[in-house]
This record gives sequence, C-alpha cells and structure tokens, in this order.
Amino acid sequence: MAQRIVMVGLGATGRAMAQSLLRRTDVQIVGAADRNPAVVGTDLGVLVGSTATGVTVVDDPAGLPPAALAIVATTSDLNHVADTLVPLLERGYNVMSICEELAYPWSSHPVISRRLDDTAKAHGVTVLGTGANPGVLMDTLPLLLTALTQRVDRVIIRRRTNMSRYGAILSKFGIGLTPEQFSAAKESGDVVGHYGFEQSISALASGLGWTLDAIEVGRVTPATVSEITRVGEHVTVERGQIAAVTHAARGLCGGRAVIDLEIMFGFFDPSDAVAAGDDYRIEGADQTIELTSLTGFESFISTIAAAVNAVTAVINAPSGFLSMGDLPVRALASKGAQLLEDGSL
Amino acid sequence: MAQRIVMVGLGATGRAMAQSLLRRTDVQIVGAADRNPAVVGTDLGVLVGSTATGVTVVDDPAGLPPAALAIVATTSDLNHVADTLVPLLERGYNVMSICEELAYPWSSHPVISRRLDDTAKAHGVTVLGTGANPGVLMDTLPLLLTALTQRVDRVIIRRRTNMSRYGAILSKFGIGLTPEQFSAAKESGDVVGHYGFEQSISALASGLGWTLDAIEVGRVTPATVSEITRVGEHVTVERGQIAAVTHAARGLCGGRAVIDLEIMFGFFDPSDAVAAGDDYRIEGADQTIELTSLTGFESFISTIAAAVNAVTAVINAPSGFLSMGDLPVRALASKGAQLLEDGSL
Repeated sequence: MAQRIVMVGLGATGRAMAQSLLRRTDVQIVGAADRNPAVVGTDLGVLVGSTATGVTVVDDPAGLPPAALAIVATTSDLNHVADTLVPLLERGYNVMSICEELAYPWSSHPVISRRLDDTAKAHGVTVLGTGANPGVLMDTLPLLLTALTQRVDRVIIRRRTNMSRYGAILSKFGIGLTPEQFSAAKESGDVVGHYGFEQSISALASGLGWTLDAIEVGRVTPATVSEITRVGEHVTVERGQIAAVTHAARGLCGGRAVIDLEIMFGFFDPSDAVAAGDDYRIEGADQTIELTSLTGFESFISTIAAAVNAVTAVINAPSGFLSMGDLPVRALASKGAQLLEDGSL
Repeated sequence: MAQRIVMVGLGATGRAMAQSLLRRTDVQIVGAADRNPAVVGTDLGVLVGSTATGVTVVDDPAGLPPAALAIVATTSDLNHVADTLVPLLERGYNVMSICEELAYPWSSHPVISRRLDDTAKAHGVTVLGTGANPGVLMDTLPLLLTALTQRVDRVIIRRRTNMSRYGAILSKFGIGLTPEQFSAAKESGDVVGHYGFEQSISALASGLGWTLDAIEVGRVTPATVSEITRVGEHVTVERGQIAAVTHAARGLCGGRAVIDLEIMFGFFDPSDAVAAGDDYRIEGADQTIELTSLTGFESFISTIAAAVNAVTAVINAPSGFLSMGDLPVRALASKGAQLLEDGSL
C-alpha cells in the first residue's frame, strides 16, 4: 500500500521532487498546493512535464487532503516556513522540508525549534529538515566519518560547488554581477550567500557532544571575476562579471576554530586555478581522516535525491522534531528500488 | 550516572577497547572475562597498562556481574561467537561484538540471525555487530553516500589498507610468507583473507532494497612479492616474501556485478606502484559520486574507534538484532567529549 503524500510549494525543487515521487511505487502524491496563481488549477503531472495525475494544484495548504506526509518546499527562511509547518503538524501530517534553516535550528532558532518539537509530539508526528547541504555533506557525512576516531580535534571542510545548472537562485550568491554591482547588492541584502552554515555547525557540534563558544558566519565574497564567457544552463557569466564566490563559517571553542567550513560557489572553467570538488578533513587524536571528491556533488541533484530518499524514513520515525543525523543510514539510503523501471531520471 | 559495561575477550582488540573505555566518563567497566589462563586473576587496569581498577579478570562470562552492556571480542567466526552471545542476551545484557560475521549475517547465517533477533527481543535487549569493516567503510558509509542519488546502478569500492601495525593476524592474510608457503597455507585453510565481505555486500544490498542473485567471494591472492625489507610494528617482511595480498567480492544481479569490492592488505613502500588509500564510486542514474582517501583508514584504529563510539547507542537502541546502518549517525559519532581530559589516546 503506497503512502499518501501532499506537496506544498512547486518551485524548481518542489517540481523536481514531485517528478521523482510520481515515479515511485511506494508513495502516491494525493495533493499539491502553491501560492503562485499561474500554477493553481493545473494538473500536477502536466505541470512537471509528465502525464496527467488527476491531482489539481490548490492555492491554500489548508485545502489539501489527508496524507501520511507533507513535503514543504517554499523558502529558506525558517521564521516564514514555521507558519506553514505548524498547521500541517496540527492536522496530523508528518512534515519534511528542504528549508535550509530547518536542518538543525536548535541554536539559531531555539523558540521555533521547541515549538515544532512540542507540536509534533503532541500530534504524534515527525518534522524533519532535509537536503544535501545542510543535511548530509557538511553535517551527517562528516559525523559518520568521526565514528572512526576516538576523539576529534577539528573538522575542516572545503567545498567547491558547480552552480551552472541553477537559474534565479544565483542572484542570492551574486554570481553574474560585476564587482561594483556585487558590493551594492551585498549592502542592500540581496546577496546573502549560503543558508545553513549555522545549522550544519550546530548539528556537528551537537553530534560530537561539543558546546561551542560561538558560531561565526562570514560574509560572501567574490572569488573569481571572469576573463571569459561562461555559459550555464539558465545564466551566462560574461567577462568582467563574478563567476565564483566564497562563503565561510566557523565554530569556535576555547578560541580555536574547531569546525571550519568554506564553500566556493561558481561556474568553473578548466582555465581556473580551482575546480569543483570537495575536501573533508577530520583531525583526530588517534588518526586524521581525509577524503576528497575530485568532482564534487552536484548541488541541485544531491538536494532532490536526499529529500526524496528520506520520505518514508520521516513517516516511520519516532515523533518530534528530528534532523538527518537522527535517522538510521539505511532509512536515508537511495530508494531507486522503489522507482518504476520504465524511465530514466 | 555512568553505564555499566562488561568485557568478554581480552585479546589485542578487547584490551584496546578497555583502555579507551576506562578513560570515558559516561561508562564504567564492572567486569571482564577471558579464557586465557595467563590473564585470569589479573586486574583489568594493570592488564591494559593503566592503574588498577579493582576489576579482576574471570575465566567464565557466566561469572560476570550485571551490566547494561557486554562487549564481546573473541573470534571472527559467528558460529562460535553465537554461543557466547545468546547466554548474555538471556541474562539481560545488551551485547555488542566486533565479530566480523555479526555485521549483517541475515543472508550468510539466517538461522543464527533469527535466533539472535528472537532472543534479544524476548529479553528486551539489543545485539549489534560493530567495527569499521564490516560496519562502516564498505557498508554504512557508501549507503549514506547513496542518499545523494535517486537510483544507484553500481557501487565500486577499492581499499588499500596498511597492515604494518598488526601482529599475529597477518598470518590469516599470508603476509610475510613466500609464494610457495602462501599456496600451501591457502590449501590448508590457514590463509583466508578478509572476513566480512558477504556481510558488507548483504548490508549494502538490503539498505538499497536490492535482491541479489548471488554473492561471490574470491580467494585471497598475492599482489606484491617484496624486493626489499619492510619493517612493521610486530613483523618484518623480507625480500622474496609476500608484502601485499588482494581479496575481492561481488554482489551479482541480472548477471552484473552491481556491488564490486576489493581490498589490498599490505605493508606499503614508496617504491611500490600502489599506496594505501581508498576509492569509493557510486554510479547513479542522476550523478556519479566519487570519493578518495589518499591516506586510507588505519584498520586497527578505525575498528576500535567505531566500536567504542557505539557503546551507548547499543544501550539506547530498540531491542532486537541491529546492524550499524540501523543506528542514527549522531549515535555512531565520535565520543571524544566523554573522554577524560587528562591523557592522550
């Protein structure tokens, strides 16, 4: 018997998740909601480029039918998303969201975290912040690696992520702006960089049993001003425009940066001094663990996969507000065996 | 209040675990047993090179005091270990063992697996197979990586592991034998290679929801006959002796090797064509994930760490027979915060 799911938010990520879940045999999408008048009233299947499903998009989540799980893909801002999550929990849905700040907001948003946990427990359901980063790459994956050392002294992660498949979201990073435009956009708050550093650092520290003195999130800065034209899937970066930016954050303890994270987001070219790729370094008292991905993890693909792979885990989990690190690895693993055989992703 | 623990088996790994746990503030070793007459009657602390603990080693596990957890470190052979595990479960201990075949024996030892699960559930306790490999490196870690892809086509892992810190166990791999001695020792069953391939492959397949047609475990073969002298911690490999061996296994589905594992165990030298290090490749329909460790994971250190880091997770887990992939990542993470501050590892 397939588990019933409703979708809330049908932007690029919501649609990509729906596309995947429509092909799964273990779940069934029975409702979808989005505030955008352009999509309200359309068939969900048609909206995501598939065949009609009989599920018509409504504008208000309150109009959705009962289901085991609601998947929320609206914004990165937890203060805003919480107002969507709480009524869903109160109506008895398990809830999962790719909102970055939901990943582990116990230190960044303690009041909202407590409210979500209390509401979920009162209604016997689970709420989970999911995604690849935060969610896996800078928290759950390094936490698992620490299992191989008895005492961790420091965690250092450097990611260089290819962003050339993205569209509108690039403006948040300032990619495609001139240095002058970038400065102005940062000043006005339009360029903010990565959401989720504080949550990844909190999740890591909590998983290691560490109490941090402070979490410092830096400001996003230009890393590469392009000397060539770089063509992405939706956006082209011209000569003189910013092709890559760097954003970093640190967790401090006793004056030391015991958690040290940095991400370069960019359109990379073979002529650059750097290429996409990830470096993990867990400095332990007994051994130092180093892992490198020469190709990195494609941001959008990884996020969609981490989310859709976790849907049944949320339904089966104990009630309350959980993070990805609270779930068994087997439950987070790829659910390809639940996909229909008759199509490619 | 520290959790009470008893140790069963005080060989090299049992002693290393005891050494670590004696320095933890969240657990307390209250009993220890070993069949070796040379250690029975000695103080556990003195035996592991520390100060006296007041815990005297007994010969029979039946003489151990009540505790929340029994840690078993005796042999790799599950048929043998099960006879130690079952009475402990019946007496109400949660039980953890580094026995490789306990990692995920549902396909290799279905009757014993069922018996362990039934016994544990009947007594409201947990039994866990732990360790680094099997346990993390070729099962739980790649399973977590699959979370970043919607459908996995193939998992390929190549490990090259430095064995120069080991002593007696090297004979199991044939390291230090001449090629002629190796052939004879393989024939007589003295050289067997790695325990745990079948369990890692089963854990991976089960976590991915795959039903395999077969698991093929190859025979260990010489990889490097040394042309120089290689000095290890306990053993020296002379010119003309085997310095490295290769052991491989595959999980087959529809005639394809969908899980493809290989480990080279050796004393490595800069003059060799290969060096220690690990390569992970998850071939997905949406993206291929590649991770490399240029230094690899030190086998003994990783095993001890994975085990001691999991002790409280076993005590807190639901009852039954679990694998490392059944536990939340946060519970498996390093417990360095629980170590006393006043000493190095």
